[in-house]
Amino acid sequence: MKGTWVDRRAIVAGLLVSTATLSLSNHVAVAQDDPLPSWSEGQPKRSIVDFVSAVTREGSPDFVPAPERIAAFDNDGTLWCEQPMYVQLAFALDRVKVLAGKHPEWRKKQPFKAVLDNDIAALAKSGEKGLVELVMAAHAGMTTAEFEKIASDWIATARHPKFARPYTELVYLPMLELLAYLRANGFKTFIVSGGGIEFMRPWSEKIYGIPPEQVVGSSIKTKFEIDGGHPALMRLPAIDLVDDGPGKPVGINSHIGRRPIAAFGNSDGDFQMLQWTTGQGGRRFGLIVHHTDAEREYSYDRKSSFGRLDNALDAAAANKWTVVSMKDDWKRIFSFQ
Amino acid sequence: MKGTWVDRRAIVAGLLVSTATLSLSNHVAVAQDDPLPSWSEGQPKRSIVDFVSAVTREGSPDFVPAPERIAAFDNDGTLWCEQPMYVQLAFALDRVKVLAGKHPEWRKKQPFKAVLDNDIAALAKSGEKGLVELVMAAHAGMTTAEFEKIASDWIATARHPKFARPYTELVYLPMLELLAYLRANGFKTFIVSGGGIEFMRPWSEKIYGIPPEQVVGSSIKTKFEIDGGHPALMRLPAIDLVDDGPGKPVGINSHIGRRPIAAFGNSDGDFQMLQWTTGQGGRRFGLIVHHTDAEREYSYDRKSSFGRLDNALDAAAANKWTVVSMKDDWKRIFSFQ
Repeated sequence: MKGTWVDRRAIVAGLLVSTATLSLSNHVAVAQDDPLPSWSEGQPKRSIVDFVSAVTREGSPDFVPAPERIAAFDNDGTLWCEQPMYVQLAFALDRVKVLAGKHPEWRKKQPFKAVLDNDIAALAKSGEKGLVELVMAAHAGMTTAEFEKIASDWIATARHPKFARPYTELVYLPMLELLAYLRANGFKTFIVSGGGIEFMRPWSEKIYGIPPEQVVGSSIKTKFEIDGGHPALMRLPAIDLVDDGPGKPVGINSHIGRRPIAAFGNSDGDFQMLQWTTGQGGRRFGLIVHHTDAEREYSYDRKSSFGRLDNALDAAAANKWTVVSMKDDWKRIFSFQ
Repeated sequence: MKGTWVDRRAIVAGLLVSTATLSLSNHVAVAQDDPLPSWSEGQPKRSIVDFVSAVTREGSPDFVPAPERIAAFDNDGTLWCEQPMYVQLAFALDRVKVLAGKHPEWRKKQPFKAVLDNDIAALAKSGEKGLVELVMAAHAGMTTAEFEKIASDWIATARHPKFARPYTELVYLPMLELLAYLRANGFKTFIVSGGGIEFMRPWSEKIYGIPPEQVVGSSIKTKFEIDGGHPALMRLPAIDLVDDGPGKPVGINSHIGRRPIAAFGNSDGDFQMLQWTTGQGGRRFGLIVHHTDAEREYSYDRKSSFGRLDNALDAAAANKWTVVSMKDDWKRIFSFQ
């Protein structure tokens, strides 16, 4: 697994270099050190560069000291692919199938029956309550160390159904460039995701350069125990934080303790995070990734299988949030394309 | 307020320089660049330096990569003075007195009556339940921004009853040196305190160099609201996390997402954090600050007004935790002494 990631990073680095060279030959006006080579020249790219220049230039009226340069990124659909279903849901479904042998009652009980029958329509019908039941069954009743191993092993072997590649390769190259660009300008980058905090942490540093302590996500409760003489944290089947929608500013306040000056999302689950970030004094930045590319990724506009993008998109213009069309504004989406 | 802190840092910097010079003339064997000049030469100082050398030297069997060099510090009694009562409790008592005009019923209702009568014995008798009630009354029912201002204003003007100085000056000079020494060796330093996370964050960066996102503490729940067109987080009278005792590993896992390799405490509230930190493979470090200096600070051994040091001290030898006697192992305690 480590080998895969090292290779991947080498590939990305290689692509960044080759893309930069390509940009140079195609667009003479672009400086050789363009930090965002996978972004088309256009309003979204300009708005990013203008914002970063404004808040980092000493003497600028919009200058923000480095420790306050906090940038918050949603994960699913913003940093990596969330179709045809959230990666973590794919994990939970696989996990339920593994555990089913010990739970014969699941053959007759929803939402487990739907999972075992591969009946996604019935699963969707079980609603949020059903999904929570699934996640509890898949994620609780083990120590944090055991869960980390299970999640790491799964992500090393699971493959995306459309692209037939590890999920960790389905990260958006333009967003990797953006993360690196912000960090090079003194920003501290955080993930703020509706996904499970302990599901993301085992790989966030390797694929995004975001260490575990800068990952904010949904969580279940844990309890300290001495297990066979060794201290352990047991994962309990009880929700701690739903880090989605109005829960995102709550998670940000709890984990980061300052308001971000830039936020990046792709759904209504990010609406309040965008409001919380940009609805304060001073120069701020909000961005929405709009899924418009059926060929290279997916095109689902305002409605995905498990989420919506209505309120946030409707509010974008009034709030001066940048909207990125993946089809038009990204020259490349994945590094392997 | 800002001026006070800037002055304080200048004073500390000045003292560090003058103390280093003093060490040189008193102890010829000590290198001029001694990073811990306020520590007496002895086992505790040696154990710290040995540990840091072992985990940072490339090729050492105990080497730990920099991103995993997480150090967790309790606050009350470990980084600053916790006598005659927790600073935050002094804040809560003052706050109850300010709010009492709007709550005539408090004159007859415990634990509020005890506060208004300055009856500390009655207050102590109200137990943990009473203290929680007080904290809720003092800390909830306002936005996070309002609370930050109230806490910041209070700490800028409140004075310690024995030393007649701002609480922010009652930080232990040897521990400031230790924080700086660890950071200079690639460690990321965190506060992990039973105290309120939002009470500490407004000043942790200025007095300890620990930014808000590296502060873990007890918390109450918050709720996102749009307040007069502006997004706000309202503080609710409901406990979120009690980051004390077995709650400390839980808070560490939630906020940091990796196990520290070094932990520093002074009471049984730190027992499980010490176990969680040192009870794993590899070279680890645990330290207990023992309050033994009645003249320069306080001497309360195993029992303070609001806490105990029994289990952790009894377990120190078996776990190879370093025990620091403030009287014997610290040449200076406060920078103003």
